Amino acid sequence: MNATTPIHTLLPTINQRPLPDELVVALQIHFGDRCSTAMVVREQHGRDESSFDVPPPGAVVFAQSTADVVLVLQLATQFKVPVIPFGVGTSLEGHLLAVQGGISLDVSRMNQVLSINAEDLTVTVQPGVTRKQLNEAVKSTGLFFPIDPGADATLGGMAATRASGTNAVRYGTMRENVLALEVVTASGEVIRTGTRARKSAAGYDLTRLMVGSEGTLGVITEVTVKLYPLPEAVMAATCSFGSLADAVNATIQIIQLGVPIARCELLDANTIRVVNAHSKLNLREGSMLLMEFHGSPASVKEQVDTVQAITTELGGQAFEWAQTPEERTRLWTARHNAYFAGVQSRPGCKAITTDTCVPISRLADALLDSVTEAQQAGIPYFLVGHVGDGNFHMGYLIDPAFPEERALAEELNRKLVARALQLGGTCTGEHGVGLHKMEFLVSETGSGAVDMMRTIKRALDPNNILNPGKIFTL
Amino acid sequence: MNATTPIHTLLPTINQRPLPDELVVALQIHFGDRCSTAMVVREQHGRDESSFDVPPPGAVVFAQSTADVVLVLQLATQFKVPVIPFGVGTSLEGHLLAVQGGISLDVSRMNQVLSINAEDLTVTVQPGVTRKQLNEAVKSTGLFFPIDPGADATLGGMAATRASGTNAVRYGTMRENVLALEVVTASGEVIRTGTRARKSAAGYDLTRLMVGSEGTLGVITEVTVKLYPLPEAVMAATCSFGSLADAVNATIQIIQLGVPIARCELLDANTIRVVNAHSKLNLREGSMLLMEFHGSPASVKEQVDTVQAITTELGGQAFEWAQTPEERTRLWTARHNAYFAGVQSRPGCKAITTDTCVPISRLADALLDSVTEAQQAGIPYFLVGHVGDGNFHMGYLIDPAFPEERALAEELNRKLVARALQLGGTCTGEHGVGLHKMEFLVSETGSGAVDMMRTIKRALDPNNILNPGKIFTL
Repeated sequence: MNATTPIHTLLPTINQRPLPDELVVALQIHFGDRCSTAMVVREQHGRDESSFDVPPPGAVVFAQSTADVVLVLQLATQFKVPVIPFGVGTSLEGHLLAVQGGISLDVSRMNQVLSINAEDLTVTVQPGVTRKQLNEAVKSTGLFFPIDPGADATLGGMAATRASGTNAVRYGTMRENVLALEVVTASGEVIRTGTRARKSAAGYDLTRLMVGSEGTLGVITEVTVKLYPLPEAVMAATCSFGSLADAVNATIQIIQLGVPIARCELLDANTIRVVNAHSKLNLREGSMLLMEFHGSPASVKEQVDTVQAITTELGGQAFEWAQTPEERTRLWTARHNAYFAGVQSRPGCKAITTDTCVPISRLADALLDSVTEAQQAGIPYFLVGHVGDGNFHMGYLIDPAFPEERALAEELNRKLVARALQLGGTCTGEHGVGLHKMEFLVSETGSGAVDMMRTIKRALDPNNILNPGKIFTL
Repeated sequence: MNATTPIHTLLPTINQRPLPDELVVALQIHFGDRCSTAMVVREQHGRDESSFDVPPPGAVVFAQSTADVVLVLQLATQFKVPVIPFGVGTSLEGHLLAVQGGISLDVSRMNQVLSINAEDLTVTVQPGVTRKQLNEAVKSTGLFFPIDPGADATLGGMAATRASGTNAVRYGTMRENVLALEVVTASGEVIRTGTRARKSAAGYDLTRLMVGSEGTLGVITEVTVKLYPLPEAVMAATCSFGSLADAVNATIQIIQLGVPIARCELLDANTIRVVNAHSKLNLREGSMLLMEFHGSPASVKEQVDTVQAITTELGGQAFEWAQTPEERTRLWTARHNAYFAGVQSRPGCKAITTDTCVPISRLADALLDSVTEAQQAGIPYFLVGHVGDGNFHMGYLIDPAFPEERALAEELNRKLVARALQLGGTCTGEHGVGLHKMEFLVSETGSGAVDMMRTIKRALDPNNILNPGKIFTL
């Protein structure tokens, strides 16, 4: 990609064909009212949180079992029709959009927690279980599942996009926390990857090949993840800074010192304002870090002492504690709602969201220039970041009625990604490639690596029926 | 696999062909005396720490650069000849053996530390850098690389086999610690996977596909790994138990309580005896845990208090501290030499090593019955374990002159693996599949998953020249 690449290439190429009648009849015979061609159902499955408009899939099938998934894939193979796995629709990058038509395979009814192995700190769930449901299910064991992308996403979707979010700075992402999967292949074969053992050197790491493959290599029908003991002590705090640079530099120092901080989130003054309005809070307007510390009381105290020393030196003010679980929940709910607060701050807008992640020492370089560029362009935006990981999101708020606003946002995004790549980072820390970052992927990894991905895709999905048109073009 | 599978199937199938003269000439023109066909050099590259005897490769090439590796692979593709990447030869599973002949590609001279990014806690090295060399190189930064498989293996080899060892219980394995790779493909193309960012959702996880692929999908020519701040406080201790069961149960409780122990190693009385003899130590003879604690002084104290409470309750005695760095080094060197101490305890023997890893709650079931079986069979053995991960190794000491000893050891290994798989574990926690665990891999993952591995292998290495005959048969 270079500066002369036309902006419109970031819009998806749409190449839909109607579903063959014979296929629809076969699906209806097998699934009855669990196969729907009603427009309202198709439309609900034909959008996600991305900014793209794509006509909906031809049909929606609600799977209740692995056998259902097998059957859909066998029929899809027979008729050479795309299948798009669907959880609860919280993708931000157009993963769920039926750019080549096909069947939306809704697994949200596959929502059983299959086995809680508290003594091994593992749990196995169906793909439609959401993270909140999972944490509710394991609550009595004294364990919890830390990965928290904000949205109450399904575990299947989180695995498919290699999700992370807050808490990843301490507990890792889906990459580190998925131990094993059951996957249905393009031809409808059920395979198992991994075991419940915490480590293994048994052949190719199919688990991690599937994690982050965005539904293009198989449909995930079971997920086994790690759990963690609920920390003995939890403290959350906010700290305001005189400038964005100070907040970012505090973060860099916290990470470089190896503080095992559990959450280290940044919101800029802009975002605090919309969060306050949306969540009826009175957070001090300014660049703010929202932090959480997990551990024994002594360990938490040590972490807090170190962080307070760093933030004080950088002029951090108003170090405020969320003392009770309720206060903490309110704070994190507000953080999680920042996206929606941002979007609602400009009625009728859509958000074009960035997702770069850079080595921690380059975070200030990556972030500050991006903010300056957005301000200079005069585009409304919000800024949130899992900055402890070097990951931040600008949300450019565009009016979809004005193509020039989209073009401006995409141009800012393009510059922001180019900067992150130059700093040794990635175009997507956690949202995935989907439709929106296909060109950036090539810039990031080079065409050789993308060709290797294509080779794997062609080998495992020779008819190109698994969520086609995503990650790369074939 | 079932009980009637003949034992001899665990011996490798050898199908060597001599190298074409034209290829040897081409290699010699390009590499001069860095290409050797001398028998002594070939033999040195035709063995590893496994118990197999296989005739050596046809030639050895000493690569000094990625360009050298590219050239070897281009020639190998042209002549359809196998290439076996070679580091320092510490594999235990026959990975390096030239079962189909070919070229041993020695990368040990590619041993430059390319860039230390202390401020990002990352380092990039050539594949021939060993872990000790790496730690020496980063010493002045206050950071360290924790993964420690015992042998002073190369980073390339450790990545290729998904190595771990002591410290993995706290810091993870190569799976969690490799951020990025440069890899030369079968056709001689150089690709890059991953970035220095700590997380990414950018397409298929080629990094982790390569990690653990045992040289069968590409030759690793650069490795970027995470570093960690040297812990402020380090304490190491040994604790003796009245029975193996007590030592194992103490481990299970330590892990279940979430103690962030850095090392938790088990040696049985048998092994302590040979280690004492080999390393001139006076460790108390009995089942023993060797432990190490990392953290702030307060955190280390907390960990130690918790562990002492657990071990005391289980009759642990003689909790002894290695107070100084020298004492610690002596203790861990003795632990690392346990394998060699075991082998030397029976002159002329070879060790057939097991490597199962199970969910932590099943560790006692997996381990105790295996020891009983070895004792009943009357075979000399040693037992060491990274038990904090649920991973342990029996080393059956056989006289290679007596095939019935090998058969007995393999039968014990077979039972041990079957038990681990039944308990939800894996046939290999860290050594890899190589030649020795090919049949177990099928039992573990099922033929569907192995077929998927084969499909990927065929797609990425259509001429089957990359370390052929390992992991699975094609």
